[in-house]
Order: sequence, then C-alpha cells, then structure tokens
Amino acid sequence: MRLADQRFVDLLAAFRSPDPTPGGGSASALSGAVGASLLAMVAALPKPRAQHADDEGRLAAARESCTSISERLVALMDRDSEAYDGVVAAFRLPKGSDQDKQARSSRIQEALRQATETPLEVMGACRDAIQGAADVAALGNANASSDVEVGLELLMAGLRGAKLNVAINLGSIKYQDYVDTATARATQLEAEAESGRQAALRLLPASNR
Amino acid sequence: MRLADQRFVDLLAAFRSPDPTPGGGSASALSGAVGASLLAMVAALPKPRAQHADDEGRLAAARESCTSISERLVALMDRDSEAYDGVVAAFRLPKGSDQDKQARSSRIQEALRQATETPLEVMGACRDAIQGAADVAALGNANASSDVEVGLELLMAGLRGAKLNVAINLGSIKYQDYVDTATARATQLEAEAESGRQAALRLLPASNR
Repeated sequence: MRLADQRFVDLLAAFRSPDPTPGGGSASALSGAVGASLLAMVAALPKPRAQHADDEGRLAAARESCTSISERLVALMDRDSEAYDGVVAAFRLPKGSDQDKQARSSRIQEALRQATETPLEVMGACRDAIQGAADVAALGNANASSDVEVGLELLMAGLRGAKLNVAINLGSIKYQDYVDTATARATQLEAEAESGRQAALRLLPASNR
Repeated sequence: MRLADQRFVDLLAAFRSPDPTPGGGSASALSGAVGASLLAMVAALPKPRAQHADDEGRLAAARESCTSISERLVALMDRDSEAYDGVVAAFRLPKGSDQDKQARSSRIQEALRQATETPLEVMGACRDAIQGAADVAALGNANASSDVEVGLELLMAGLRGAKLNVAINLGSIKYQDYVDTATARATQLEAEAESGRQAALRLLPASNR
C-alpha cells in the first residue's frame, strides 16, 4: 500500500515507529504535498481577483499545476522510503571476499545516488509549486492570503527537509563530480524557491500582510 | 470522521477542494504532528547515545512527550476547521434589526476569538515539541540527525503557519486588550520555539551538521 493510501493517523504512527522508514525524506515530500494542495485550494476559491479571461486562464493553470505537483510529491513519499531501504539493503550485503567487498561498495554507492536523486526531485517539485504561487497570490481570493502563506511555509519546509536529505547522502558518496553537481543543484533549487517565495509574498493583497 | 482518520490522499483532496476548510490552520497543525512524530521516532531508534539510566529516562520522556504532542495536534486539526466554520456561521446570521446586528456582531467576535485560541494552542504544542528536541538531538541515534532537523523544520512551519492564522483573526477582533495579549503570546511562543530550535541544533552530532 502506498504511504498516502494509509489513514493519516496510521501514517503518523509509522513515522513515530522505530523503523527508519518512513522518515524525514518522506515527511519532507508530505509537507510539500500539503503546501501545494493549499495553493491549489486558493486558486479554486470563489471570488478570485482574476477578472479577464487571460488572468482566469493563469489561475486555472496554477491550480492544475499545484494539483499535479502534489500528486508528484505523493509518489515521492514512497520513492524516498524505497531509496533509503535500498541503502540499508546494500550495507547488509556480504563483505567476506575482496570481490564481495567491491560489489557491496559499488551497490552502496549506487543506492546512495538514488537516495540523493529522490530528495532532489522533492526539492524540484516544491520549487515548481512555489514559483506557481505568484499567480495564486496575485489572482486568487484576497481573503485567503494566509492560506497562500501557510502553503509557502510548508513547501519551504519540505524543500529544506529534502535538502538535508541530499546533504546527508552526499556525505557518503565517493564520486566527487557527482557530489559537486548535486550540491550545486540543491543550492540553486533553494535559491530559486526563496526568490519565488518572496515574489509571491509581494503579490499578496497589502491588507493581509 | 476526524480529518486524521481519512486516508492521506483524501485529506490532500480535501485541502485542494474549494471548500475553505480544511485550510491553512489545519495544515499547520498537521505539519506539527508530523514533525513531532519524527522526533518521537528518533527518540525510539536503536543505538541511542543515551548511556546512563538518567539519560535513557530523559530520552524515553521525550519520546512520550512528542507522541502525546502529535496526538494533541491531530485533535487541533479538527478544532481549527470547526473554529473557522463557526466564524463563517456567525457571519451568516441575520442582520435585519438592530438587535439582530448586535447579536450577530457579538457572535462573530466570540467565534473569531475561538479561531484565534486554536492556532495559539497549535503554536504552544509545536513550541513544546521543539523544546523537547534538545534531548532527542543530544541523546538519540547519531545517524538520525537529519530526521531531527526535518522534524524541527516541520514544527517551525506549523508554528509559523499557526501564527499567520492568529494574526488574520486578530485583524477583525475589536477588543484591543485581547488583541494585545494574544499578539504578545504569539510573539513569545515563536521566540521560545526559535531558541529551542537553535539549542537542539547545537546538540546534534558535529559530523552531521
């Protein structure tokens, strides 16, 4: 069963259990999924400030995009737990002979790489939703600006949580080129998200800021 | 049915729907519940750094406290939506006669107060979990520090999201004494949470920072 198909109380119990998955990586994707859903709600509320067909189209596109991002993040909740389980499985491989050791080390490196790519995707999904928040902030119902801001908080928390998971895995990866590329990518995604967040906040109705 | 008794995918669909509840207030409580659950998980992991009975007791107490805080936040998810529905219901009361108008205005003020108290409780619950994070950071399994950090991110996002909901409701409350007291309380809770977060981060094993 997908994590997201569980009742939320059962999902919380799974996070609380001493099993390492689901852990912080899946929780980060979850946070982003809720944040993107809040933005989709604001884009769907009656009495939007969008007046012209053009603006209505942009708001409808933002709604659709945030909905699909929240579904992407739901899938990434499972992917992150699977990736972590892959790392644990690789560490448990036999290390008797030199050949064993070499095979194990190469499987560990491959698994760590997968466990890095997944939170990078979570970061990308959160960044995309945050960049779409500008249209929601500018064109959505003016009374829902706190929902836009809460959505941004949860998306930024998801993005930063995913970045911590990128960093922790990179700490054990030996291919320096990959480490450098992934580090630069994570830094860039966070910077893009932060400017997207600020752009969206500037577009919220002044009375609610 | 409690919000948290729904499957997580259905809960996301409820956040995305154009109905105003559940909205940002319930989403903030949700984020805090996941954050507190991650801290409870780290406190429960094998190979803690707690060595003495005293430390083991502190870690067990942190686990129990984070578990109970996450349950408090689950209840607050519903309470926040009910409080918002109460505000909407009060605004829909008749306003024909002067007596109607006065009764309606007093019901609105009472409902807004309830809609302010609930996110203040969410802030308090998140602050409590963040203050408990120090013991988890200092005594929990050293390999789970990214889970502690993600937990703190989600708890801070929940706390800040709740603070936005306090502010939006206070904007319509007429009793200045209450506005001043609640504003001061929210500011204090955020400050206490922020120092708790920093204290916990300082106690994480250096290799993972």
